[in-house]
Order: sequence, then structure tokens, then C-alpha cells
Amino acid sequence: MIATIVGTGLIGGSLAISLKEKGVANWIIGVDQSAENLRKAQELKIIDEGAVSIEDAMQRSQLIILAIPVDGLLKVLPSILDKAGPQHVIMDVGSTKEKILQLVAGHSKRGRFVAAHPMAGTEYSGPEAAIKNLFTQKTMVLCDVKNSAEDALEIVEDMVDKLQMRLVYMNAEEHDLHTAYVSHISHITSFALALTVLEKEKEQGRIFELASGGFESTVRLAKSSPDMWVPIFKHNRNNVLDVLEEHIHQLEQMKQLLEKEDYETFYKLIQKSNKIRKILK
Amino acid sequence: MIATIVGTGLIGGSLAISLKEKGVANWIIGVDQSAENLRKAQELKIIDEGAVSIEDAMQRSQLIILAIPVDGLLKVLPSILDKAGPQHVIMDVGSTKEKILQLVAGHSKRGRFVAAHPMAGTEYSGPEAAIKNLFTQKTMVLCDVKNSAEDALEIVEDMVDKLQMRLVYMNAEEHDLHTAYVSHISHITSFALALTVLEKEKEQGRIFELASGGFESTVRLAKSSPDMWVPIFKHNRNNVLDVLEEHIHQLEQMKQLLEKEDYETFYKLIQKSNKIRKILK
Repeated sequence: MIATIVGTGLIGGSLAISLKEKGVANWIIGVDQSAENLRKAQELKIIDEGAVSIEDAMQRSQLIILAIPVDGLLKVLPSILDKAGPQHVIMDVGSTKEKILQLVAGHSKRGRFVAAHPMAGTEYSGPEAAIKNLFTQKTMVLCDVKNSAEDALEIVEDMVDKLQMRLVYMNAEEHDLHTAYVSHISHITSFALALTVLEKEKEQGRIFELASGGFESTVRLAKSSPDMWVPIFKHNRNNVLDVLEEHIHQLEQMKQLLEKEDYETFYKLIQKSNKIRKILK
Repeated sequence: MIATIVGTGLIGGSLAISLKEKGVANWIIGVDQSAENLRKAQELKIIDEGAVSIEDAMQRSQLIILAIPVDGLLKVLPSILDKAGPQHVIMDVGSTKEKILQLVAGHSKRGRFVAAHPMAGTEYSGPEAAIKNLFTQKTMVLCDVKNSAEDALEIVEDMVDKLQMRLVYMNAEEHDLHTAYVSHISHITSFALALTVLEKEKEQGRIFELASGGFESTVRLAKSSPDMWVPIFKHNRNNVLDVLEEHIHQLEQMKQLLEKEDYETFYKLIQKSNKIRKILK
């Protein structure tokens, strides 16, 4: 199968590597609005060729994967669906789903589209960040699959299987709520923590000398690109605001306990939070 | 040299392993108020023998390392110093320093004590959590060393060198401020994040299906023991409250930007937080 990957960054590039390695595709065409990224992806042999336009690439591909920020996705998906033939499968990998699925809900070729979100990534971006096995043993969420054509869905499910991913089906609403809690809020807290400590560094130069693994762990996501994340927060604004409010509430509660020196209740809160051990091995 | 380690958990146990391996000590006596932990530490060959009392262990040791929670440290350090002879070096590994150093400031044998804090650890506890090379290439902070006797300090510095740690000198006040920013707040945010998501799970059972590396990274510290952490927050209450207030302020700011849909400023904030890249490689 020939596959086209639009957006040859961390996710698109890593997918390109895995699709070839696992025998899903034997030829990968790359499309990227950055000529520089496309050149790098070719140099790194992540893609087999760079196409001048999506049209040209689509003519020769069966599977088209859109691995671009979610605001870009909103712009290009309708016109790509317009051009889709019955042989095409269009899949995205975006981190939010409601807005995208609302946008194409009434499209005559909605069936050719499969809405996907691999729960995998790193804090790095660009073709150089693409790595082997990024998706192995990770979860792939497919959303509102009842609106995808059966043959299109089968091709994506087969791909997920070959990538050795765990498959989860969800509706778009559930997906956006859940990712707000287990992904988007983690990024917000990391960005905020980095800002808090960077601010303090201005007066206390030596502050990072003492930074160790724990700090690095909670703050590493703050290296993530605003180009990817601002559109996610924008699309998932209501859910992100809800979880952010709850998180601030938890922090306020801890602050009040410290102010009142109620260490007994503080102890119980930490014990409660330790229940995360049953989730994270 | 014979060394006694009081508290044979993650830090004490890992130190015991390294002291033997790097040739700092050839015999390790373990002391632990939990008979169960002491038995495990012996079974795991982390210590060479378990002593019935600190007195007994001190009679045969030159170096005594106190690796117990900081509230326990406050209780036992004065009486251990009372018993110290001119041959003894007493070192702690506590995460806060001001209260401990205030407590022993006027002690006649203050010189035998070296206040230390290795910036290393994991979210696990107990002898089973002890690992090799936990300290290699990590930072050891020594506080207020001008109040330690020269020969005692030399023995600790030599140990730090043999453990291949980076040595940093600081006063206790600076130490407690800096650790509030690069360690204690990370634990607070992790505990709070775990609580936020565990709360939500009660109504949305499938929420953790989508958890991936990013979530795990920001929340793994929430597995940490309240026995260790509540005393730290208690000792460093003022600094922790300051940084917690600043962190809540950063989160409030992000919340307001989302509410106002001011994505341009939000973008700039993320860009600013990306400067953490220069700190974390």
C-alpha cells in the first residue's frame, strides 16, 4: 500500500517509520508545508518521497494520514474529503475530536474518514524527533466509528493491529473529556510549573542546581510546542477549563490545610492520591 | 570504615549499597524502628547486620547516617549528638534543613554533624526500593558546613567524591527555599493532579484507558509516601506556601486567558515556559 503522511513531525514521522517497518505500507509520500521539514524527513529516510501537493500525493495513495496541529486539520480536512475517491481512507491523529467531527458530520464522503488519536508522543517536535516504536503497546482511540465506512475502518483497524497498539472505541465527546483529564491538564500544570520556577530563577540564580529527577518528570512536558498545544486548548476549551478549575481547587485545599497546619487531613489527602499506584504500575 | 545507617528505606538502603560498592565502608550496620524493614534489608544483603540499638551501633561505627523522615530526625538527632565521641561523624540526608540546624545550633558537639541532602530519589519507599547507583552523577547539597568540624566534613566530602556526586554548598535558608521550588512543589502538584483525576474516575470509569507517558510523568510522584512528605511540608511550610501561591497564580492566569479566549497571550506564555529546555536536556 502507498500511504501519504501530511505533516512529517514527531507523530507523522514516527508513524511513517512504523508503517514501513510493520509492513502496513511499502511506500510513504510525505507532504509538509515546511519545505525544510520535508527535506529533513527525506534525508532521515523517514519518507520515500516528498510530494509537491496533497492532490498529487492522493492520486497515488490509498491511505492518507493527517498529522498536523488540530487547527490546521480543521482547515484542510473538508477539501481533502472533497477530493477523496471510494478507494481512499483518510485518517487524522489529532488530540481533540468534537470540533473536527462536527465539521465533517454532513460531508458526503464522511465515510472515508476515520478519526483516530494515538495516545503516544514526547515533548519534542519535528522530523528529528520521530522515533521507532513510539506506538508499540500504546492505546489508539478511534472515535465515532459508526460514521466511517466499513472498509475504511477495517484498513485502520488492521494498521492498529500491525502497530501492536491497544484499540479503544469512544465517542468524540467522551474522548475530549477524558483527554482533558489525562493529557491536556498535565501539559497545563507543566507549563505553569516551568513558569513558576523560571520566574523565581531571576532572583535566585542557583535554583536549578538542585533540580533532580522528580522536578524533571513533572516539568518535562513544558518543552512541548505551542503550535501544537494552543489549538488543542482552544478546541477543548470547556473541558480544559473544567479540569483546570478542579485542579486549582485541589491545590487551594492543600494550601488551606498548610495554612491551618492541619497535617492530619493533609496526610489523608496524600494517602488518597497514592491510589494512583493502582493505575500507574 | 564501619558505617551505621539509621533508616534502611529507599535512601538509607541505596546509600548502604553504594558505600559498600564504592569502598567507602566495608561493614554496614542497619538500625530501623521497623523490625520488618530491618529483616528485609538483611535478607536483601543491603546491610551486614541489624543492631538492636543506636548506642550499640555507634560504639562500633565511625560514620552514622540518619536516613529517616525529617520529623524523626528532629527527635533523635540531639540525643545521638549527646552520645557522639570525637571519632564520630553524624550525617543526615533530610529534605529540609533550617529546623534541624536551628535545633542543634548550640549543641556542644555540633561539629560532629554534617547536614547533607542528596538530590536523588524515586517515588518508592522501603528497603525493596533501594537501588544501585541512585546517587551517581546526582547533586549532594551540604549545608552550613562552617559549623561542622573539618575532619568530619572531610570524611563526608570524600564519600561524596567516591559516590561520584556533584557537590554543592549552601546555607540552610537557601536550601529550603530552592528545594521548595524544584522538589517540594513538584510533589504537591502531582498529589493534586492524582486527586483531580481519581475524583473524576468515580463518574467516568474509563478515564485511565487513555493515560499515556505524559500523564504518568506528571503524576508519578503522587505515589510518594505521606510519612516522608507531610513532615517535609510541615518543616518547609512558609516556602512551600509561597511557591504554591505563585503556582496557583500561574494556573489562574492561564485559566483567565482561556476564559477570555486570548490565545495569543497563551501562546506567548507557553513559549516562555519552553525556556525550561535550556535547563532540562
